[in-house]
Amino acid sequence: METPLSPLDFARRARRLYADREAVVDGDLRLTYGRLFERCDRWSSCLQGLGVEKGDRVAVISPNTHSHLEAYYAVPQAGAVTVPVNFRLTADDFAYILSHSGAKVVCVHPDYFEAVDSIRSQLPEAAHFVALEGSREGWLDYEEMIAEATAAFEPVSIQETDVISINYTSGTTANPKGVMVTHRSTAMNIMGHLMHTRLTSADRYLWVLPMFHANGWCFTWTITAVGGRHVCLRKADPRLIFEAIAREGITLLCAAPTVLIGLANAPEELRRAAPRGVRVFTAGAPPAAATIERIEGELGWEITHVYGLTEVSPIVTISEWRPEHALLDAAGRARIKARQGVEYLGNAEVRVVDDEGREVARDGVTLGEIIIRGNAVMAGYYNDPAATDRAIRDGWFYSGDAAVVHEDGYIEIRDRWKDVIISGGENISSVEIEGVLLRHPAVLEAAVVGLPHEKWGETPQAFVVLRPGEEADAAGLRQFCRDHLAHFKVPHGFEFISELPKTATGKIQKFVLRGGRANLSAQ
Amino acid sequence: METPLSPLDFARRARRLYADREAVVDGDLRLTYGRLFERCDRWSSCLQGLGVEKGDRVAVISPNTHSHLEAYYAVPQAGAVTVPVNFRLTADDFAYILSHSGAKVVCVHPDYFEAVDSIRSQLPEAAHFVALEGSREGWLDYEEMIAEATAAFEPVSIQETDVISINYTSGTTANPKGVMVTHRSTAMNIMGHLMHTRLTSADRYLWVLPMFHANGWCFTWTITAVGGRHVCLRKADPRLIFEAIAREGITLLCAAPTVLIGLANAPEELRRAAPRGVRVFTAGAPPAAATIERIEGELGWEITHVYGLTEVSPIVTISEWRPEHALLDAAGRARIKARQGVEYLGNAEVRVVDDEGREVARDGVTLGEIIIRGNAVMAGYYNDPAATDRAIRDGWFYSGDAAVVHEDGYIEIRDRWKDVIISGGENISSVEIEGVLLRHPAVLEAAVVGLPHEKWGETPQAFVVLRPGEEADAAGLRQFCRDHLAHFKVPHGFEFISELPKTATGKIQKFVLRGGRANLSAQ
Repeated sequence: METPLSPLDFARRARRLYADREAVVDGDLRLTYGRLFERCDRWSSCLQGLGVEKGDRVAVISPNTHSHLEAYYAVPQAGAVTVPVNFRLTADDFAYILSHSGAKVVCVHPDYFEAVDSIRSQLPEAAHFVALEGSREGWLDYEEMIAEATAAFEPVSIQETDVISINYTSGTTANPKGVMVTHRSTAMNIMGHLMHTRLTSADRYLWVLPMFHANGWCFTWTITAVGGRHVCLRKADPRLIFEAIAREGITLLCAAPTVLIGLANAPEELRRAAPRGVRVFTAGAPPAAATIERIEGELGWEITHVYGLTEVSPIVTISEWRPEHALLDAAGRARIKARQGVEYLGNAEVRVVDDEGREVARDGVTLGEIIIRGNAVMAGYYNDPAATDRAIRDGWFYSGDAAVVHEDGYIEIRDRWKDVIISGGENISSVEIEGVLLRHPAVLEAAVVGLPHEKWGETPQAFVVLRPGEEADAAGLRQFCRDHLAHFKVPHGFEFISELPKTATGKIQKFVLRGGRANLSAQ
Repeated sequence: METPLSPLDFARRARRLYADREAVVDGDLRLTYGRLFERCDRWSSCLQGLGVEKGDRVAVISPNTHSHLEAYYAVPQAGAVTVPVNFRLTADDFAYILSHSGAKVVCVHPDYFEAVDSIRSQLPEAAHFVALEGSREGWLDYEEMIAEATAAFEPVSIQETDVISINYTSGTTANPKGVMVTHRSTAMNIMGHLMHTRLTSADRYLWVLPMFHANGWCFTWTITAVGGRHVCLRKADPRLIFEAIAREGITLLCAAPTVLIGLANAPEELRRAAPRGVRVFTAGAPPAAATIERIEGELGWEITHVYGLTEVSPIVTISEWRPEHALLDAAGRARIKARQGVEYLGNAEVRVVDDEGREVARDGVTLGEIIIRGNAVMAGYYNDPAATDRAIRDGWFYSGDAAVVHEDGYIEIRDRWKDVIISGGENISSVEIEGVLLRHPAVLEAAVVGLPHEKWGETPQAFVVLRPGEEADAAGLRQFCRDHLAHFKVPHGFEFISELPKTATGKIQKFVLRGGRANLSAQ
């Protein structure tokens, strides 16, 4: 017998078994699962009342709130598709995403009313704007509508291959792309989490990770599946995090490395009062050994490093604990925890391959690109078949991440694949060279890119910003690199510039550096 | 992107990640996952060499051995269907199952060579007989074939809805039925286990439960999925179990209640030396409070009660731990652990319904039948559409088990549904009445069935075997029942007989009792 794989089935179970358990804490508001789902049902019936039909898109622009969480149930059970939008973007970005997704209903937290009102004229398909909190002229009132609605929404037949959400990528070099995630791939990711995280109804999850970010890595659904408690946090501030952990008895959270650094460096009185045993999932960049030591050694928490992308809905590897790891010293444990790890159970097959698609050696040195196939992989980019075809080739999703594989099969990311320099047949990580340059006392910032070379194909070229008042020349830096790198990795050229070209969010634009001096001076 | 859900995908991952870990211990033989899968590949290529094609059936009659385990990988990856046969059956049963399944290859442990040779003439479709250990005239030699084979078998394209095994039910009242289990439903059950059991590569699983029994409740695949260790046990003897636990550092086992009773009553020196912390899964009948107390309180092990049937591949409920259970005293914990519990995550929806399909009240009293739908449910009975239609109605599998639902949603089985007596519109559990009668000092055995009654529909009728030398009459037993039961549950008649009609395996044949005196005297 087959029944559709869907987060809605986990919600159905939670509704039956955990109705009396506390589901959500959001400031002073506390909702049981019974009340949460009652509100979701009412919002589903409101959406249907607004004319939302199967496959229609409903966008949400909101920090981590109970109403944002409700969208993850109310929208798909009404047959529609959730479009969670990164609230850190500009009004122009909102306009692009809302227009590209063709959202029929746009649900917005008060912080973003003005930004959205400023672009309303650019959104002909958006028939309704909903104020998730408070009220506003020309906007529908979420709480008022829920209060007046019936919970008896019209059931919609859902196939497991139906799209449940469209999540837009950050789009550093081009417009954001809409990742279509299906009910089936989401269900597989929920199960992936539950097989690796030992979650139970005793767990209390702190919403540090934004819900919009790849559906909060699916924790919007995973916590509910086991009847755990969602504790909303509207701002990822270290003091607020420590306070919430103590007040709500938090057992689990997900956090980007920068947040972990903030926690590790928080005032001592906050750290001293923190309860032990909190489990932390982190991804994005490996946590530094010092951060791990502070959080595991001092706080007594447990860090687990995972890896994924929006396109794989989103977690596909974990630095899985093995019994032999118990024998490692602190440095050895930090080394393991810095790795992205091994593929998740059940949802994806993960390989690291060279340019010809051959798996790289398990030597911890040879760089390859991470490729992924399986149920975790997206259905494609919304209304963008060309980009889908570029990303998924011969049945594999190409992540764009460059990694090595260690002897134990654990993957470790070293660079973006497009930033890897191929010189004389060797793959060279630009990040590794930058790391060496940054250890030179005179260097403030450094970026390394590959420039075309007749003999070697490409050679590394370094762009360096010196610290104010410090001096260094190409010969000195070259010698420094020779002392710390294999010779073929030493940059052929060093260019000293006053600042590196960066995006609004601070990412270095290597494509500008590759374009050479003309582009640089245009900055 | 969709890729087929299959245990073979978990095996693929294990092969990549756990090749150097010890996979199987069987007596003196110890195999890493690398060697185990190499042997499986060779056996797959042997099977193909014997002419086994996609969908062909390969039967196994064997206790828990490495070669039995190998069949769970080698047979499906060659595209074929495993038929694990209950080795406790008679030669006639073997003949029925091997013939009904149309097994092309029959793999047999030496203990069953003679039984199988005695029925070979009845198996025209069985082209090859394989001696899993040793050798025998007219039989192929498993180890010899594997030693000479290549590992390069022909890859077979597998859909997730393909059948992976046909498991025959025990067939108390009719011929055994062949339950068709698919790759998808097996994958869902593996994930169900992994979401609830917190298994890791540090786990060492003792094979007490027979592998043939519903594919060893899928632990044949689940342990491999996490890179745990299979420790084979060929006989479920308490001393052997305790010795294996100590010798191999066992962390987990599954055992029928009778095995648990054997462990609880084992000699004190065995119990005293047992390591603490072993996790035990049990199903079939609720463990008695005294057994739980001995095993949890004295041994320091953890018992988890689960429930399932071969038709649901097989586990669909678990007496899930909740934080509030920590507050219970020993009696309260035993009460929870005696319940079959709540539905598994992800694989099935479980309800308890009355004759009209309405869910019964959560009052711990009202009896209903357990019905199940979802991916765990079989594809049907092999070559028996009529039986399939009787078992799966309106999209639900009817388990035949009668249960109550407690206030917390936990299910507790009280009887077989066909043995429930419906009297004056009330459902009465025959097992409850039998339990009261058995507490009477003169009663050795008792069975209660419903007999037709003009006014009440049915009324309970008791059949009683008295202890040798003891005396009791109907009036005395009636009064005893009135003292311990609601009045409408008190049997209308008491019949004293010398022995109860039973099957070869000791199950009471209630259909004989319902047939009345004529059938009884025919015994």
